[in-house]
Amino acid sequence: MKHQIDLNSDLGEGFGRYVLGQDEAILGYVTSANIACGYHAGDHNVMRQTIRIAARHGVGVGAHPGLPDLLGFGRRNIAVDPEDVYNMVIYQIGALAAFAHVEGTKLQHVKPHGALYNMAGKEEGVAQAIAEAVRAVDPDLILFGLANSLLVKAGRRAGLPVVEEVFADRTYQADGTLTPRTQPNALVTDPGEVVERVVRMVKEGKVTAVDGSEVDICADTVCIHGDDPQALPFVKQLRQRLTEANIDIRRVGAI
Amino acid sequence: MKHQIDLNSDLGEGFGRYVLGQDEAILGYVTSANIACGYHAGDHNVMRQTIRIAARHGVGVGAHPGLPDLLGFGRRNIAVDPEDVYNMVIYQIGALAAFAHVEGTKLQHVKPHGALYNMAGKEEGVAQAIAEAVRAVDPDLILFGLANSLLVKAGRRAGLPVVEEVFADRTYQADGTLTPRTQPNALVTDPGEVVERVVRMVKEGKVTAVDGSEVDICADTVCIHGDDPQALPFVKQLRQRLTEANIDIRRVGAI
Amino acid sequence: MKHQIDLNSDLGEGFGRYVLGQDEAILGYVTSANIACGYHAGDHNVMRQTIRIAARHGVGVGAHPGLPDLLGFGRRNIAVDPEDVYNMVIYQIGALAAFAHVEGTKLQHVKPHGALYNMAGKEEGVAQAIAEAVRAVDPDLILFGLANSLLVKAGRRAGLPVVEEVFADRTYQADGTLTPRTQPNALVTDPGEVVERVVRMVKEGKVTAVDGSEVDICADTVCIHGDDPQALPFVKQLRQRLTEANIDIRRVGAI
Amino acid sequence: MKHQIDLNSDLGEGFGRYVLGQDEAILGYVTSANIACGYHAGDHNVMRQTIRIAARHGVGVGAHPGLPDLLGFGRRNIAVDPEDVYNMVIYQIGALAAFAHVEGTKLQHVKPHGALYNMAGKEEGVAQAIAEAVRAVDPDLILFGLANSLLVKAGRRAGLPVVEEVFADRTYQADGTLTPRTQPNALVTDPGEVVERVVRMVKEGKVTAVDGSEVDICADTVCIHGDDPQALPFVKQLRQRLTEANIDIRRVGAI
Repeated sequence: MKHQIDLNSDLGEGFGRYVLGQDEAILGYVTSANIACGYHAGDHNVMRQTIRIAARHGVGVGAHPGLPDLLGFGRRNIAVDPEDVYNMVIYQIGALAAFAHVEGTKLQHVKPHGALYNMAGKEEGVAQAIAEAVRAVDPDLILFGLANSLLVKAGRRAGLPVVEEVFADRTYQADGTLTPRTQPNALVTDPGEVVERVVRMVKEGKVTAVDGSEVDICADTVCIHGDDPQALPFVKQLRQRLTEANIDIRRVGAI
Repeated sequence: MKHQIDLNSDLGEGFGRYVLGQDEAILGYVTSANIACGYHAGDHNVMRQTIRIAARHGVGVGAHPGLPDLLGFGRRNIAVDPEDVYNMVIYQIGALAAFAHVEGTKLQHVKPHGALYNMAGKEEGVAQAIAEAVRAVDPDLILFGLANSLLVKAGRRAGLPVVEEVFADRTYQADGTLTPRTQPNALVTDPGEVVERVVRMVKEGKVTAVDGSEVDICADTVCIHGDDPQALPFVKQLRQRLTEANIDIRRVGAI
Repeated sequence: MKHQIDLNSDLGEGFGRYVLGQDEAILGYVTSANIACGYHAGDHNVMRQTIRIAARHGVGVGAHPGLPDLLGFGRRNIAVDPEDVYNMVIYQIGALAAFAHVEGTKLQHVKPHGALYNMAGKEEGVAQAIAEAVRAVDPDLILFGLANSLLVKAGRRAGLPVVEEVFADRTYQADGTLTPRTQPNALVTDPGEVVERVVRMVKEGKVTAVDGSEVDICADTVCIHGDDPQALPFVKQLRQRLTEANIDIRRVGAI
Repeated sequence: MKHQIDLNSDLGEGFGRYVLGQDEAILGYVTSANIACGYHAGDHNVMRQTIRIAARHGVGVGAHPGLPDLLGFGRRNIAVDPEDVYNMVIYQIGALAAFAHVEGTKLQHVKPHGALYNMAGKEEGVAQAIAEAVRAVDPDLILFGLANSLLVKAGRRAGLPVVEEVFADRTYQADGTLTPRTQPNALVTDPGEVVERVVRMVKEGKVTAVDGSEVDICADTVCIHGDDPQALPFVKQLRQRLTEANIDIRRVGAI
């Protein structure tokens, strides 16, 4: 069987007068779009416009629920309890699902944003609340979580289709988790090396950790950071190399 | 055929630490609940809790979308354009619909809140945007609008089931519109008179305007102001008198 | 020298349509008022009204800056960095100081709210950022902090006048910190015992910890929880007992 | 006496993750900076950073209070009552004044933003509330208002120093007001013509209205739209031409 990979990117992160990212350009190169739902970014106008553009490009459309923290762009941990998480995820999926419906499409997946994503990877209560919220809204929605994280496990326990996400430009530790950004060796900066790591993760299911050990990893989807000025040349290079390596680039959800 | 009337009330208007109204008590006496959706009031926790309580009481559950103005409680006109209105209504209905689904029920109706309701009664663009948003989300949703207003007309044009709302404690003008609150004779203050006006509106389809003329009016539903300290004794008195007058009190949507 | 104590309470915690607490009633019994500044509660209208009422009662007026989290009422820890804290405290003090000036008074003190207060008690960076922000705005402002906490120490290092606050209804641990609310013995529930503990803290500078040990504590001010339904009878009882014990009840700042 | 003119620009309009405008570049060419205060744009971090940069460039620093509408960037009229306006202006000036103090400078002026500016030009109650708020905070603050508008008159009545602002790229009507943007001839698009209009407004105190009539106008300051991609070449051209015309470019407030 041919190997395959999904490329996802966070989109629709503007708000009112504020524009962020290069959604139109990125949409030509990714297969799944995570759309902000108004809590950490996005507003009702941006959401509908983004759904429409994404649907036109045929990419898989997903909800990207975040913490209610526009000022912090959803990147700051907030001490939220699981029921609060459950409710905020339902709210945000519901709002985006209505736009998907109105624009003649439907949601493919849910990927938590920023601090909510990170907390879901490490805190059992948060992970479970997200998984249960997604299932409660629609058990066919695919849950995106960090590879090897608690969110992935919670999603499987909830009976959801789950997709494991890798970060091409981040290093991993021996236990399969990401090296925290606070550490000097957290990032892989050479674009060629970044691309080769992805290829190996897809084909061999392995990544070399910072301590030199080999770690099992499941690379179902790779995150493309649309707000990185180098995102476009990077994603082009990545796509070319993946194609050369005979890896199919396709959205995770059936069309 | 027996006459009938729906009694509706705005619920779920708390936010975070803030509690408002007497939802549990009111729910024993009304047949439809308009639930705030997070823009003018309400948050994801309040919304789920309110949907659950309302569903338990068997009342019809509706979205109560408002302008994005928590500070002004959605009561201040904001110069919003029709596309913005269209999108904000879709967003709010979608969010509440997800909670309804999760709690095992579904939305019966949509009633715009406060300034959005008032603007929809007088501004064609706003009225049409709301009607089209409701239809785009679900053409079976019942649209609540002020009796004789542009919103009612826009709803009919959009092919929606429409319910005309009367205000028991407000006086009417010869053209069938409400006397503005800024005028001294805007309110009917005697509870007995308020009740009799409702009975007449339901049975005869008439109300006496402030200039003494008789105005045609369609009273499908009456608004009960849950944040009024006198709401409970009033609604009890109203129900008793309606029953005596052989008027059925029942929710507008089929169960 | 006669012993003395200040009684403080959090006020002005409404927002828009939402009313909270019983400010007018409480103001008859406390000597210092901590006024919300629009981040966790309060808005520009509530702030001016509260300053005006507080000034009329002759109580010391203080800023009560909180985390930017109206939904969580400033009670949830948010991972904020020290520079962010520094700036948010300056912003909030500045806004309230303008109202004080306009209403013919000036700020006496600053007491961080909720999660910001708790974080400041335990995180050096947060404590120092707050102390430096207060000093930068006005070095004559009195800093209120939890007795024995890092905030109190940071305030002294910054050269600020510092007031140590005790919680009448909370138990203490052997190291002088509050017993976390998550523990079953966190609260003192008997009103008589609560009052006696305050008297002893003021006169002897001691409190009996949960392990039975005696802990040094400096009780400059006691927090009265204005949103507690029992606040009024409690503060009356406390004032009577303090007076019997020959303890002066007076605001910390000179008039 | 030599003619003189102030050049002002709206700055500090980012929010959290969102960056807007080209503040550093513009600051090399203007003499007064209007800094957003957190209601329509700006946050406590952006405010302090902007004050600091502006002070370093020696420009006059002013508060740019707006309506509480981040989503609408303060550009949508909201039905606010005068007391609300009075309080929101005090709040925002106070917050920014604290940053000015902390950064070793002080505010020179206040210029309302967007819809608040426009409403203040036409609604007596709004104009007076703003003027009284500015005076209450500090009667030495200079009030910026649209030339010939009600705000300018209200500022003079309040005893404030007042500066009249002209818009270089907008046409005027015979009564001295701006041609509404909804009209086809609202804008002057030729850069050379824009510049010559400013020169004439400064030197002769006249502008030719759209009906060909000559209108008296007092051009104390000109607004440079920092978010216009052509802002930099335009302001350079304007400065050069003003200098050739022997007009002093200097900030309105004394240094």
